[in-house]
Amino acid sequence: MNSNDINSLLQRCDLALEAREMITKGVSRNIEGVQSETLTTDHAIIHRTTIMNEAGAKALGKAPGRYITLEVPKVRLQDDDINDEVSYIFSNELKGMYNLQPDTVSLVVGLGNWNVTPDALGPRVVNQLFVTRHFYNHMPEVLNPQNHNVAALSPGVLGITGVETGDIIKGVVDQIQPDVIFCVDALAANSVDRLNTVIQIADSGIHPGSGVGNKRKSISRDTMGVPVIAIGVPTVVHAITLVNNALQLVSQQRRIDLGPDQDRVLRQILDPFVGALVVTPKEVDMLIEDISYVISNGFNNYFHRHQA
Amino acid sequence: MNSNDINSLLQRCDLALEAREMITKGVSRNIEGVQSETLTTDHAIIHRTTIMNEAGAKALGKAPGRYITLEVPKVRLQDDDINDEVSYIFSNELKGMYNLQPDTVSLVVGLGNWNVTPDALGPRVVNQLFVTRHFYNHMPEVLNPQNHNVAALSPGVLGITGVETGDIIKGVVDQIQPDVIFCVDALAANSVDRLNTVIQIADSGIHPGSGVGNKRKSISRDTMGVPVIAIGVPTVVHAITLVNNALQLVSQQRRIDLGPDQDRVLRQILDPFVGALVVTPKEVDMLIEDISYVISNGFNNYFHRHQA
Amino acid sequence: MNSNDINSLLQRCDLALEAREMITKGVSRNIEGVQSETLTTDHAIIHRTTIMNEAGAKALGKAPGRYITLEVPKVRLQDDDINDEVSYIFSNELKGMYNLQPDTVSLVVGLGNWNVTPDALGPRVVNQLFVTRHFYNHMPEVLNPQNHNVAALSPGVLGITGVETGDIIKGVVDQIQPDVIFCVDALAANSVDRLNTVIQIADSGIHPGSGVGNKRKSISRDTMGVPVIAIGVPTVVHAITLVNNALQLVSQQRRIDLGPDQDRVLRQILDPFVGALVVTPKEVDMLIEDISYVISNGFNNYFHRHQA
Amino acid sequence: MNSNDINSLLQRCDLALEAREMITKGVSRNIEGVQSETLTTDHAIIHRTTIMNEAGAKALGKAPGRYITLEVPKVRLQDDDINDEVSYIFSNELKGMYNLQPDTVSLVVGLGNWNVTPDALGPRVVNQLFVTRHFYNHMPEVLNPQNHNVAALSPGVLGITGVETGDIIKGVVDQIQPDVIFCVDALAANSVDRLNTVIQIADSGIHPGSGVGNKRKSISRDTMGVPVIAIGVPTVVHAITLVNNALQLVSQQRRIDLGPDQDRVLRQILDPFVGALVVTPKEVDMLIEDISYVISNGFNNYFHRHQA
Repeated sequence: MNSNDINSLLQRCDLALEAREMITKGVSRNIEGVQSETLTTDHAIIHRTTIMNEAGAKALGKAPGRYITLEVPKVRLQDDDINDEVSYIFSNELKGMYNLQPDTVSLVVGLGNWNVTPDALGPRVVNQLFVTRHFYNHMPEVLNPQNHNVAALSPGVLGITGVETGDIIKGVVDQIQPDVIFCVDALAANSVDRLNTVIQIADSGIHPGSGVGNKRKSISRDTMGVPVIAIGVPTVVHAITLVNNALQLVSQQRRIDLGPDQDRVLRQILDPFVGALVVTPKEVDMLIEDISYVISNGFNNYFHRHQA
Repeated sequence: MNSNDINSLLQRCDLALEAREMITKGVSRNIEGVQSETLTTDHAIIHRTTIMNEAGAKALGKAPGRYITLEVPKVRLQDDDINDEVSYIFSNELKGMYNLQPDTVSLVVGLGNWNVTPDALGPRVVNQLFVTRHFYNHMPEVLNPQNHNVAALSPGVLGITGVETGDIIKGVVDQIQPDVIFCVDALAANSVDRLNTVIQIADSGIHPGSGVGNKRKSISRDTMGVPVIAIGVPTVVHAITLVNNALQLVSQQRRIDLGPDQDRVLRQILDPFVGALVVTPKEVDMLIEDISYVISNGFNNYFHRHQA
Repeated sequence: MNSNDINSLLQRCDLALEAREMITKGVSRNIEGVQSETLTTDHAIIHRTTIMNEAGAKALGKAPGRYITLEVPKVRLQDDDINDEVSYIFSNELKGMYNLQPDTVSLVVGLGNWNVTPDALGPRVVNQLFVTRHFYNHMPEVLNPQNHNVAALSPGVLGITGVETGDIIKGVVDQIQPDVIFCVDALAANSVDRLNTVIQIADSGIHPGSGVGNKRKSISRDTMGVPVIAIGVPTVVHAITLVNNALQLVSQQRRIDLGPDQDRVLRQILDPFVGALVVTPKEVDMLIEDISYVISNGFNNYFHRHQA
Repeated sequence: MNSNDINSLLQRCDLALEAREMITKGVSRNIEGVQSETLTTDHAIIHRTTIMNEAGAKALGKAPGRYITLEVPKVRLQDDDINDEVSYIFSNELKGMYNLQPDTVSLVVGLGNWNVTPDALGPRVVNQLFVTRHFYNHMPEVLNPQNHNVAALSPGVLGITGVETGDIIKGVVDQIQPDVIFCVDALAANSVDRLNTVIQIADSGIHPGSGVGNKRKSISRDTMGVPVIAIGVPTVVHAITLVNNALQLVSQQRRIDLGPDQDRVLRQILDPFVGALVVTPKEVDMLIEDISYVISNGFNNYFHRHQA
């Protein structure tokens, strides 16, 4: 492995975050072409940002669109009542992001690998959704006026299917022609304090990074033909990112330039895995169970409960 | 529930078997338009039947095509060596059923619900397959001449996706255009002695029964445009089938006509579930693990090992 | 297998029920030495029976003690709010059965096999309990006055450990000397309508049947030295029981004596499994998840929440 | 958190390794009171070390006893044939470590938490063992002369049971009085290159570190009264260890003393988790499945197959 590889692995993380993570507190205030507001509730801090034009897009390095970040640190407490409250907040933000009409057909896509715990968020959310599309077609009598038409899909990952995830989704979209797609995905965060306690919502779709192994296509209005709302939760930090952050901190605090030593240390510490190691809380299995409940419960409220 | 419902539930089972189960030993000998042979090996009895024309189809009540049934009772012993041997036999029969060319693109579809143990056979097989299609596209250098181009899909079930399984498969087939489809499914058997110890292979595709809840489309050359090989393993007997079989036995042995009492007993015994109860061996979790290993290992041999 | 074996298999079920199932509605009214009452709430019918003396014990064929049966059919609806309500009812009945003192040390034992879905109820309840005994010993500062001292154990089953379950529990009891033991177990019911919708509580402990494979020791005040409260939920019906019930119904309705035909039919229908087949609802995985939540949540209320 | 806490967290790792990890290549050669040898086979490097007396114990900082380390990097390849070979090597080393007599009663203990993937190694090994103790007591006719008397136990962890693991084991040992105990545990490694590819065997038992949260008792001949063979596989590196190693490397390479900056960086990078983050390969679920198969298969060979 040469030093270019280290760079592209780190860049992969950065690009992934660049592409997928939302804009957070304070950063986006008072920028031309950008509107933002922050609300604080008992169990969440809600940041809503709209990039209104190319000026704002350029300033923030992100496509025009709406971005919401929910900070919900109390999800770590594993308290059912708090989780129900966070579900409600999430469903409310979904409502602000996309206003369902009575005849809207929604497709929820659970991205990720059900065999890899921290990547299983999307498939687990899909498993817990109340889907109704088949009732609309065959048993409309079981539905009530509050129900919306919902379909769901867990397409799997490239290593299990051999097919680009975007191609599987596109194939299903062509068959069922939904009005809107919601994509749920586990993300890699840049720092550990965000793990399992941040929910991101954006109407700009999913645009994978350009790094190693990231040949995946975009899942967006451009490729799917309908709006794509992305919902993401950071569940891992790449080990290479964590160690690199530590080295950069040292470098800043001691005002030294590590130069090629930085690559050398990363390589030595992470050999033979380098880019394939992840950092998670010990109890990741329970945390994923909780956060997937929060998201699926929020979706079920959004699609099927009257919200006065 | 009126007595028509009981009939359609039982018919559902019968029809499902009629449609999906293969022709077994002895039945099909000496029928015009039908060729059949039986081989006995250490660990399997292999029945191969070909329905050659409409005369044979009419006689057996099945579409023209090739049907193979492997009886492998020793899979119940949970012996790794026997399971490896059965995998080999299975891969050999696959080879006889469809002759892969060097450039054949195969799609393996794991039907069924990964959350319901006896229905999870298909998705578990997919999880253990060695898929290669993405390497052909992006990293051909990791492949060797024995590898074939394989993709895989676990489409889920109607209750989880809200989408007809056939529609999901068709969407993906349109995107990746495979040359052949292999569909793996858990079946309902008519009697308990076949549970987890019979593997069925047919080149006529999957044609769901016409009964309650069986609005599913066919998955066959007609609907998919390419050959569809069905692989099935009986993993449950419907409780209603088991009890009905017992009542019929009594009726035969005592030469009495149970008449409407038969419905009454079924209804009373199975209330409030009626058609939603299944009979499985206690250790079904372990048996599904074993048989899914046998099938996936057989596929991996078939697709990726040179068979002299 | 001779006909004695069939009898002992059926007897096994009957004896197990005899020994473990509680007394239900109506049966026990107006019997000397027996007090009983029935309450009906929105989501449960509660039967409370006390066998006060040997006269009552003889009349009902059960040891003196207190027996509670909760009929909670709505647990099948998979509604979180109803399940929370049922948890509360369960915790309230536990309170009536055993009155915790501030310094009571409780041991909750989850009987059953975590690898066999319908038998996994006990271990799953244990996984979801809030245990505190280690905090009492090492970190009392994290506890509040509502917490009780709770330990838990999933001893496994004879086939996995090679050790009588009662011996494992006795070993742990000798080490930690609890004041009371709560044993949670999945039961075999006699009819399908009780599956996953009945919760039984008794202060007479667990007394295994005398049939095949039931060499297990009692888990009771006699063997453990402290009160043993048994909590049971029927999660399967043995297939042999279901078919036998159907044959008996036919026999009654047609007033015929099936005689040895009954054995012959059972044998033929269940071969080669005979006693090792179980009947469950298709969605058993989800139902076990729900009922184990109800039980563990009820325990957590009972042990750790102030109940005015 | 003050800097003492950081030290004790790091020390925890070091002490755990100190106490549990075996002596590796080269280190122990030519030391008085220490005998060591290294064998290289196709799929393993085998290091065998004996600390013969107090001189050797002092030199190596470990108790007198026998220590074996198997380096098996090819287990990462997920190749069934290689895994079977490694199982055989492991069973052979077990044989050298403890020579089973025909009437030896063995207890295999699977330490760890079955709900936390990288900690589930022990319980998974127990699930796959062929236990026989109950057959010796009740059905000796099913055994053959190659079988040994084996019992097994998955005691759970303190957070799930509220009981010291050592107390649960001691309780069971008092009941069944085995001749020897084998304890299987997942370990924290000091560097990522050892993850899932090293198997350690020692006859000195398990001696937990003295750090935070490590109040656990020893599991050894002293506490159990019979020999205790420890089998360990490193499955995680603590994130704090990984980052600290990187900082030490920088410190060495640049010949700078980071001083209090080291603590500050660790705290900043790992907040709010600090000691509760682990580093694993992405595919940890599959790797644990493979290595638990290797260990359980090796045990099954050791206990039940004739080894010429």
